[in-house]
Amino acid sequence: MMKQFFKGIGKIRYEGPDSKNPLAFKHYRASEKVGGKSMEAHLRFSVVFWHTFRGTGSDPFGGAVYDRPWDEAADPMERAEDAMRAAFEFITKLGTPFYAWHDRDIAPEADDLRETNRRLDRIVKLARSLQRDAGVKLLWGTSNCFSHPRFTHGAGTNPDPHVFAYAAAQIKKAMECTKELGGANYVFWGGREGYSNLLNTDMKQEQDQMARLLQMAVEHKKKIGFRGTLLVEPKPKEPTKHQYDYDAATVLGFLRKYGLYDDFKLNIEANHATLAGHSYEHDLTVAASEGMLGSIDANRGDYLLGWDTDQFPTDLYSTTYAMMVILKHGGLRRGGVNFDAKVRRGSFDPVDLFHAHIGGMDAFARGLKIADRMSRDGLLEDFVSERYAGYKRGVGRRIMTGKATLAELERYVLKQGEPEKRSGREEMLENIVNRYI
Amino acid sequence: MMKQFFKGIGKIRYEGPDSKNPLAFKHYRASEKVGGKSMEAHLRFSVVFWHTFRGTGSDPFGGAVYDRPWDEAADPMERAEDAMRAAFEFITKLGTPFYAWHDRDIAPEADDLRETNRRLDRIVKLARSLQRDAGVKLLWGTSNCFSHPRFTHGAGTNPDPHVFAYAAAQIKKAMECTKELGGANYVFWGGREGYSNLLNTDMKQEQDQMARLLQMAVEHKKKIGFRGTLLVEPKPKEPTKHQYDYDAATVLGFLRKYGLYDDFKLNIEANHATLAGHSYEHDLTVAASEGMLGSIDANRGDYLLGWDTDQFPTDLYSTTYAMMVILKHGGLRRGGVNFDAKVRRGSFDPVDLFHAHIGGMDAFARGLKIADRMSRDGLLEDFVSERYAGYKRGVGRRIMTGKATLAELERYVLKQGEPEKRSGREEMLENIVNRYI
Amino acid sequence: MMKQFFKGIGKIRYEGPDSKNPLAFKHYRASEKVGGKSMEAHLRFSVVFWHTFRGTGSDPFGGAVYDRPWDEAADPMERAEDAMRAAFEFITKLGTPFYAWHDRDIAPEADDLRETNRRLDRIVKLARSLQRDAGVKLLWGTSNCFSHPRFTHGAGTNPDPHVFAYAAAQIKKAMECTKELGGANYVFWGGREGYSNLLNTDMKQEQDQMARLLQMAVEHKKKIGFRGTLLVEPKPKEPTKHQYDYDAATVLGFLRKYGLYDDFKLNIEANHATLAGHSYEHDLTVAASEGMLGSIDANRGDYLLGWDTDQFPTDLYSTTYAMMVILKHGGLRRGGVNFDAKVRRGSFDPVDLFHAHIGGMDAFARGLKIADRMSRDGLLEDFVSERYAGYKRGVGRRIMTGKATLAELERYVLKQGEPEKRSGREEMLENIVNRYI
Amino acid sequence: MMKQFFKGIGKIRYEGPDSKNPLAFKHYRASEKVGGKSMEAHLRFSVVFWHTFRGTGSDPFGGAVYDRPWDEAADPMERAEDAMRAAFEFITKLGTPFYAWHDRDIAPEADDLRETNRRLDRIVKLARSLQRDAGVKLLWGTSNCFSHPRFTHGAGTNPDPHVFAYAAAQIKKAMECTKELGGANYVFWGGREGYSNLLNTDMKQEQDQMARLLQMAVEHKKKIGFRGTLLVEPKPKEPTKHQYDYDAATVLGFLRKYGLYDDFKLNIEANHATLAGHSYEHDLTVAASEGMLGSIDANRGDYLLGWDTDQFPTDLYSTTYAMMVILKHGGLRRGGVNFDAKVRRGSFDPVDLFHAHIGGMDAFARGLKIADRMSRDGLLEDFVSERYAGYKRGVGRRIMTGKATLAELERYVLKQGEPEKRSGREEMLENIVNRYI
Repeated sequence: MMKQFFKGIGKIRYEGPDSKNPLAFKHYRASEKVGGKSMEAHLRFSVVFWHTFRGTGSDPFGGAVYDRPWDEAADPMERAEDAMRAAFEFITKLGTPFYAWHDRDIAPEADDLRETNRRLDRIVKLARSLQRDAGVKLLWGTSNCFSHPRFTHGAGTNPDPHVFAYAAAQIKKAMECTKELGGANYVFWGGREGYSNLLNTDMKQEQDQMARLLQMAVEHKKKIGFRGTLLVEPKPKEPTKHQYDYDAATVLGFLRKYGLYDDFKLNIEANHATLAGHSYEHDLTVAASEGMLGSIDANRGDYLLGWDTDQFPTDLYSTTYAMMVILKHGGLRRGGVNFDAKVRRGSFDPVDLFHAHIGGMDAFARGLKIADRMSRDGLLEDFVSERYAGYKRGVGRRIMTGKATLAELERYVLKQGEPEKRSGREEMLENIVNRYI
Repeated sequence: MMKQFFKGIGKIRYEGPDSKNPLAFKHYRASEKVGGKSMEAHLRFSVVFWHTFRGTGSDPFGGAVYDRPWDEAADPMERAEDAMRAAFEFITKLGTPFYAWHDRDIAPEADDLRETNRRLDRIVKLARSLQRDAGVKLLWGTSNCFSHPRFTHGAGTNPDPHVFAYAAAQIKKAMECTKELGGANYVFWGGREGYSNLLNTDMKQEQDQMARLLQMAVEHKKKIGFRGTLLVEPKPKEPTKHQYDYDAATVLGFLRKYGLYDDFKLNIEANHATLAGHSYEHDLTVAASEGMLGSIDANRGDYLLGWDTDQFPTDLYSTTYAMMVILKHGGLRRGGVNFDAKVRRGSFDPVDLFHAHIGGMDAFARGLKIADRMSRDGLLEDFVSERYAGYKRGVGRRIMTGKATLAELERYVLKQGEPEKRSGREEMLENIVNRYI
Repeated sequence: MMKQFFKGIGKIRYEGPDSKNPLAFKHYRASEKVGGKSMEAHLRFSVVFWHTFRGTGSDPFGGAVYDRPWDEAADPMERAEDAMRAAFEFITKLGTPFYAWHDRDIAPEADDLRETNRRLDRIVKLARSLQRDAGVKLLWGTSNCFSHPRFTHGAGTNPDPHVFAYAAAQIKKAMECTKELGGANYVFWGGREGYSNLLNTDMKQEQDQMARLLQMAVEHKKKIGFRGTLLVEPKPKEPTKHQYDYDAATVLGFLRKYGLYDDFKLNIEANHATLAGHSYEHDLTVAASEGMLGSIDANRGDYLLGWDTDQFPTDLYSTTYAMMVILKHGGLRRGGVNFDAKVRRGSFDPVDLFHAHIGGMDAFARGLKIADRMSRDGLLEDFVSERYAGYKRGVGRRIMTGKATLAELERYVLKQGEPEKRSGREEMLENIVNRYI
Repeated sequence: MMKQFFKGIGKIRYEGPDSKNPLAFKHYRASEKVGGKSMEAHLRFSVVFWHTFRGTGSDPFGGAVYDRPWDEAADPMERAEDAMRAAFEFITKLGTPFYAWHDRDIAPEADDLRETNRRLDRIVKLARSLQRDAGVKLLWGTSNCFSHPRFTHGAGTNPDPHVFAYAAAQIKKAMECTKELGGANYVFWGGREGYSNLLNTDMKQEQDQMARLLQMAVEHKKKIGFRGTLLVEPKPKEPTKHQYDYDAATVLGFLRKYGLYDDFKLNIEANHATLAGHSYEHDLTVAASEGMLGSIDANRGDYLLGWDTDQFPTDLYSTTYAMMVILKHGGLRRGGVNFDAKVRRGSFDPVDLFHAHIGGMDAFARGLKIADRMSRDGLLEDFVSERYAGYKRGVGRRIMTGKATLAELERYVLKQGEPEKRSGREEMLENIVNRYI
């Protein structure tokens, strides 16, 4: 008989907004249609392996504190298998259609790469079987090229090509495992692809290296016939002082510079956006407005703290604004809403993982419904489209179609004089949003 | 006889590091050679018209406080001429080879564009004559497309094409005046080219508009035969919540996206970089490492304050690191060190303008000398180049030349095993820098 | 016949949550009872004179932009009277029971103090009559001791006792005017009571001065029989680099140090709290938990911007958390919810002032209702009180009553061993809050 | 024969500013007199046990990376003894007169408190012998009441009195060990004395608890006859969202509120000050200006990063400003300059510990010499004292001595009119500082 890791917790059910049961959904109902599509299909929720099954609650001032029954076996591979089984028990009870992993989360590193890869194969085999049984899919896989000491000075951007090679080998294997498990995407988050100090750094060299690594990944993807989308996940800093994939705009510029633009999309995380000085909806818009939004990491930071707190998303404004951007640009397609979030250090009970995910799923479900209603009513969109209407005709049209010149526009002003002012109505628009929340 | 605005202050002279005269240079000596080139030619200092001759010391909580004898005439054009004469008296006494202006700083706006342009012509004529007499040159001109109420919702990014046209007309004229005065560059700083609120904003439309405006400027430049460099100056926010020209990387990405890359370079300001979460030397390196550093704005922010304090640069670390980047990438060429800085509100005496500029010039002179000595000793550069030497040979070379694949690198690791660790020696390198300061 | 300044806008009425009329309340209904007390009595809304009737929309990069029909007269005193009449028209149409002013907002400064005071008297007379007619009361008055050039280096903390004396004279008059108008409180916000640079500052001397000024104000209050509460409003910075009234904890410490604790309470503003690195509810709790919360300034900042944006409060989490603290500690008493907020620069139409206040009032009304429901259900309060229950009995009780010693507690642990861990349940509690929003 | 942990590194010697030997002091010479006192006596340098001998280089994204020969033994107590011997080898070679520890750094926790205390006794005995042999003293001891899982929700502020008791027991023992080793001070840094979330927190109860704990510590100190100074170390956040000992002003207010003011002084750390939004010199001044500066933690943060980077202090401005405050207020007395700093993750070689400390000691030595020269020349101090001279006479004197009233000052202004403005000369003063650096 299978071990049970979340004893006493059954399948999480939808009980509606009036339910007082903390272990029930108040708003998320997978099959409920919103704008003609089920919530499940809109949101494509994904549970992450690392924080949720490998997190310990440690922080720079204290060690492991979480109580995890899947982490008790003496043998590391037995712990790895227990964790994978616990994950599927959790996902099944919670009801998300997807999950995501780093290679090193699901299988611990051994003394050499060959043995490490063997371990990975063994766990991937287990995962495949569990996926099939549970009807759960892999949203994305990725390789952890930042935790091991060898990556202290970076992976692809490491000054030592031997380390670059190690990262390359890991990525090759992780991409193959992702393919093996039918992953919809493969993600690059360069945890140490940046610098700690400019004094010992050749920035251009490091970025050239990084581009080379991504190019090889594109080639390998084609070679093995992996059909998922390659995603880059921006983050401005932490653990390094400066990470090259600073924010959405920076990554898009990088991809353009190195001829990688057509082979990648972005995975945008809320807390990474705010650490870069942007709102979540800003970075989502930067990516989505040029068709480059691949997937999202759902969490939230604390605006008053300067590090990646990775809290579960519960702010309805944030989930609403995110879903407004996503709906407007045609949905998440192959992407999903991936809970790259962790319970607080003091929430060490396994049940807290349920509270956290239920809260995040309900918050996104409400955000989706609110955004959908706003979109159907069209008040905001009409306001915006009317505001720029001048560019659809006359001199505005000449400007946008490249016909106008500075000289022509000078003549226009000399003739027409001063433009009229028109209020931007920000307060009224914010009140409209509050009407829907 | 000409009015005197800085009575009792003579030509500022070099008196050496032991001088206790606050109105003397301790380190800047224009003709002194550093690495075979005079300090003057290295640094190409420039005084700004706006803060220095039009600044009032006002802030959001209080109005004008500076005592400015050139601002006393009743007639606005007389004040404008007085200010221009005061500027040349100041520049001559201080001894900088350059200055810089916005159109609206040097000539006040009239009731309509035609009359405004006439005023500008009149002042440009005066400036030309003063430039010739003083042997002073224009580092750059620019148009203020952010202060007037018409630009409340942006200039090139305004939802109203009539306002776009107004900005276009201003830029046309400002570029022509810059050419008339032999300006070495023309700058675009988009003070309100961003958004206050995403709810009423079409980000993609606005960026498309901005690109159109820059394209027209390029065409006009060619048409009138202006030979200066076009520069974009990044700033992340303030006055708007978000400005599209966020930082160097974002602007480079924008230029690439819209096919404007070959027609522009960047003007990097210290305080704008730090507001974007970067060090000055970071943003300088981003631009310089791909040959896109056009000029620099020299100032400093207060890291503990969240707005653009535009203080005079006195931190020797900052000036040293800036000059290290600049020397390494071949100097400022047509650019200069432009003091886009203002005295504190409480420094309302005209003499404070001298203290401030002398301090800034001495700080950059020291930075230059320190950077030059470090570069000649080569300790830092050797460390860095040795650190990445692995990419010049063997597997590293195969990586950089595009020959390696993931599969080859996996085989390499399976054979070679674990890389050796090597300390980044940050503390030692920082100690070396302190040896030079 | 009286001039009308808000033509076409009638009395703002409650139309309920389904109303689509932007100029109607959706949630605020003055007479509606919440927990046995009317909303009006709970919230005691107040409109500020400065931003709302004297604001121009200017910022550091552009001048006045608002269209204000009460600001058109040529004579400054006629403008002042128009502004006062406009204020009462606005307040009456909006339906707030209170307003607040600085001396210099309502009457412009003349060439000398005697004449300035006469102007103030004239406007106070008008205000008294308008207050009586409209049934509107003064929440608080205060003196602007920061805008005039004389206060560049501070008011009470100025190095020049002549300036100190000027501030003292202004405060005397402003307090007398506040008494004359039946003000419920008198506020001290020390806009420049801090420093720009430690190099020219004697911090201890300045704080001693400030304490002397407050002591004199206490004496004067008693002398003239003013019965209102004296309030200090914390703010950490802006316009100065560092303001001594940094945050609630700092001000409480200052009041204790100088023996002023019993004579003052605090006026806590959201945006000032967040600029100091605290949440609004944090600083409210610091003040309220020792009975020192006097009144609140309602607004919101932008967490991604480093200056005082003073936006209207529309975030329901913030208004809910604020009302939770206020209800828990017995309400606002003589204080009120004062909209120290300004419309965005681009919201230059008079009607935008209505949108902004309606949005803020509705957001606080919802916050009040949500906090009241949560309080009556008691889930959060019960959780907290149960969490600390151990201090009501046994060893916990001995600790709190001062009986336990380190040695006793060591013996306790040697005997009892390791404590049990207990989850803090943060995610569950956040989900509970979302159930009410 | 004793194990050697820093093979190949001898005693670090002073070689003067021209030395290119990275393992030599360029500025710190222990016996050199500055203002009549040796550098050693001025600076009282201290090495910390935790970062330097227990640090691993781990961060939230990666585990241990430092190579530490004293951390290789299988038995934890043997490792503890090796680390202590390594510490004394290091301190002796470096030449600092002091060191500092947390209880858990020097002796690892066992399964129960009795055994843990036995381990501590064993190591303290070793330390006493090593101190005597090396002539090295203990600057301070402290208890780590934040790393163990039991302290997840705080120590003294924990909702569970059992945990409070545990903290009390630890502090009792650590204070006794500190006394045993002749410690000059005992420090309280409350790593988790704050909250993660206001929703589950009773702030007033927690602060009352904390005060009780400190009160017991004062009583125990008297009981055991410990003569050292008790120090509280402020920090605003990290690991918790909000720590009650936010900054110097907050702690002083807390001590006043709870009657603990006379029994404590402060230990001010640079990086903690900047995380609270203050400069180091600001928080030093807040403490020193009322005689409450007990000791300092010397390090530096990165202003562009929002967490405690604890870098070694190399910025000469910071060390100079710190030493200016310290010299002005009579020196450090029983306190010292304690290097609460850690080498970067990438500086994993033992020799990097020498580079780091040498750099920090040289930077403070230069700061001391510069501050001393400035103080002897008196330019800055004279400027400041002249600036406030008005309060020594006339109306200023009446203000400071409590004789003036608002009414008297109003009469003064009505008679004297407008004060004269006087520039604060910030730029000139900053230039003066640069002359000395």
